[in-house]
Amino acid sequence: MATIDANPASGTRDLLPAEVARRERAFSTIRRTFDAHGFAPLDTPAFERLEVLTGKYGEEGDQLIFKILRRGDHAASGDADLALRYDLTVPLARVAARYGSQLPTPFKRYQIAPVWRADRPGKGRYREFFQCDVDTIGSDSLTADAATLVAVTDALEALGLEGFRVQLNSRKALRGLVESYGIPEQLESEALTALDKLDKIGIDGVAGELTERGITTAAVEALGADLDAADPEAAVRDRLTRSEVGQAGLTEVDRVLALVDGVVPVAYAPVLARGLSYYTGPVFEVVHDGLDATIAAGGRYDGLIGMFQSGDVPATGGSLGLERILLLLEQAEAAAAAGAAEEGPQVLVTVMDEDGAGDALAVAARVRAAGLTVEPYSGGGRLKLAKQLKYADRRGVRVAIIRGGDERAAATVTCKALATGEQRTVPLEHLEATLAELLEA
Amino acid sequence: MATIDANPASGTRDLLPAEVARRERAFSTIRRTFDAHGFAPLDTPAFERLEVLTGKYGEEGDQLIFKILRRGDHAASGDADLALRYDLTVPLARVAARYGSQLPTPFKRYQIAPVWRADRPGKGRYREFFQCDVDTIGSDSLTADAATLVAVTDALEALGLEGFRVQLNSRKALRGLVESYGIPEQLESEALTALDKLDKIGIDGVAGELTERGITTAAVEALGADLDAADPEAAVRDRLTRSEVGQAGLTEVDRVLALVDGVVPVAYAPVLARGLSYYTGPVFEVVHDGLDATIAAGGRYDGLIGMFQSGDVPATGGSLGLERILLLLEQAEAAAAAGAAEEGPQVLVTVMDEDGAGDALAVAARVRAAGLTVEPYSGGGRLKLAKQLKYADRRGVRVAIIRGGDERAAATVTCKALATGEQRTVPLEHLEATLAELLEA
Repeated sequence: MATIDANPASGTRDLLPAEVARRERAFSTIRRTFDAHGFAPLDTPAFERLEVLTGKYGEEGDQLIFKILRRGDHAASGDADLALRYDLTVPLARVAARYGSQLPTPFKRYQIAPVWRADRPGKGRYREFFQCDVDTIGSDSLTADAATLVAVTDALEALGLEGFRVQLNSRKALRGLVESYGIPEQLESEALTALDKLDKIGIDGVAGELTERGITTAAVEALGADLDAADPEAAVRDRLTRSEVGQAGLTEVDRVLALVDGVVPVAYAPVLARGLSYYTGPVFEVVHDGLDATIAAGGRYDGLIGMFQSGDVPATGGSLGLERILLLLEQAEAAAAAGAAEEGPQVLVTVMDEDGAGDALAVAARVRAAGLTVEPYSGGGRLKLAKQLKYADRRGVRVAIIRGGDERAAATVTCKALATGEQRTVPLEHLEATLAELLEA
Repeated sequence: MATIDANPASGTRDLLPAEVARRERAFSTIRRTFDAHGFAPLDTPAFERLEVLTGKYGEEGDQLIFKILRRGDHAASGDADLALRYDLTVPLARVAARYGSQLPTPFKRYQIAPVWRADRPGKGRYREFFQCDVDTIGSDSLTADAATLVAVTDALEALGLEGFRVQLNSRKALRGLVESYGIPEQLESEALTALDKLDKIGIDGVAGELTERGITTAAVEALGADLDAADPEAAVRDRLTRSEVGQAGLTEVDRVLALVDGVVPVAYAPVLARGLSYYTGPVFEVVHDGLDATIAAGGRYDGLIGMFQSGDVPATGGSLGLERILLLLEQAEAAAAAGAAEEGPQVLVTVMDEDGAGDALAVAARVRAAGLTVEPYSGGGRLKLAKQLKYADRRGVRVAIIRGGDERAAATVTCKALATGEQRTVPLEHLEATLAELLEA
């Protein structure tokens, strides 16, 4: 048999134990936080019928959907009937339509799960990656938007992330702004795309893009003047009062600001647009100061959930940038404990001879009953102590138990602390106390 | 837009909050148990390159693999290049080959993850279902087989399952048995398939099948006599001593029995075959007494892991029948708490008027700081108390906090225990103590 390439498929990763443990810890912290905020976990299948996904992510997004070939007699057709989920929002919309009356209103759910996109793989860009969404379906109250902000920032804090701030805007305020500059409605999304880059390309860059996109010089100059003013927020606020939708947006922003005042570090960000076109009300971004990168974002999207049912269903939510956050946590952990071994069991019971294997299993059971993590050495070949201690070291084991024929005959046990080399031979009945002391040291 | 069918794809399930919570509890118990036994978590991608999976599961299995269509310009070809994982063993074999020297030897890993099979969906049979595997790679020691048995049965006990027993056999003993009846080697797997049905179809049924499959009357009669003997185990043991491989199998069985003696309820099961053809040594099944169904199984498979590298790699492991176990736990839970509400947050802070929403968020933060799960009511529409209490009831909330304008002015708070209707108005600084009392009641 020719050898098969043993790498994972392009754009996917094998997660080895230390990484799985780190991710599982983070997921568990996030779950605990969202549970504490009254959100409930939801899980949906990895694949959906193709028609559920197509047409929801724009032409470009549609190209990136992994499609599943039909099976049996239909396989030869080359047609697909299923597809891997592309995000967690469309499945949520389907669930809201399917189980509507069985769900409480509002329905507050979170989901931490992988999604799949056939993007070109690159550094930090995977074809399989986890998303973490928290949403409130069926409420038009801004209390829900505020509660999302509190839950999301609490989760970031619980993960140990520090130094972030929240930028808040409203799509209504943005629409008012565009309107008040006299930019025609059909150019609104072009204008927002340019404005969203302000942080990256500066006022002159934005002005250049706007002009390129066919927006009048007058509008571009008015915008430039506002953003260049001594107090840009005051200038924009003043302008928004002249537009009905702009004023509604401002009221929305101020309401959310007031609701989370003193709880979340949040500020009004007049030109924050958030790329996605489906937002209808407040939108936010959580920016990590050190990285100057977005680590969470979200907003209100009252039109989206209705895609599987008649009538709009109000909805608001947020998403943690989970892969980026996991990378931050990994870096922090690597800095804190460079070269740390895998977190294996605390104790290894060595096996000195075949006759001692049953005894090793029994000792392991006893140690486990004392609440410790422990394994009997299960390797094959010659039962050399040096090999077993090397294995223990590799696994990050802290104490090795050694019990050869002499110790078994004398009803004693030897415990060896691997970091210090300290070794104690004690009566078997002192095993638990001795382990506790050595593990505490 | 025509309404899209909101059901999940055929053979898949949406898991609503109460079910996700139950599953997550079970997964977490299993993880804790395997961690305590020194096994480490591994995670692999949902899809693999097609060539990694094809040819590993027999012709029938190959038909059930979900294949993923090529993308971009290649999509029109109708060809597949990727496929959803079909089990957790083949990906493990790939990982062992890919990261060999980076992994400790033996490599003890567990994985709890969904797999996908295009089986015809049916009652209790899904196209997406979870598997839970625990394996030791790189050890030929029977200590590893015994440690698997202890870990698997500990996990079942930790899950609260009671009344199970382990049946143990060895593929070597089975081969010896077949040999000693004079059944030719090329009919061995036919014979084992028939023998494996003994529990279901009885001795006469097995004898009939064997004859049908071309096995001689002499062999069938000898087998029938052994199984019908006063002490069938003694008869089989006696026969096995006449075959070299049979004796080796018996020695293997007796060694594992001795190693787990007094720890695991295990017995030698002379005709237990376990369907899969790749087993090479000890095999076991955990049978739930009440159900008379297999809830876990496994064995040694020294030839399988080598499929991605040259040379055999010894391996042994077990698998929990996770979906069946989850069903058992669900039934037990349903019997214990018929009609129980979803486990929502413990406390709901109601919102009596728009002015009180900020206060409700602040009170919720305070309650959360006391270690309780809590949400501010985030629904829209008219803020009627009755509607909010109904929502609280639906979510399984135990105490509702009511704080209208009067209470806010007087710096008091009202706590209402939903089960009893008991309601207390206390100074705000007594909130935590009052909640503790009401929740304890």
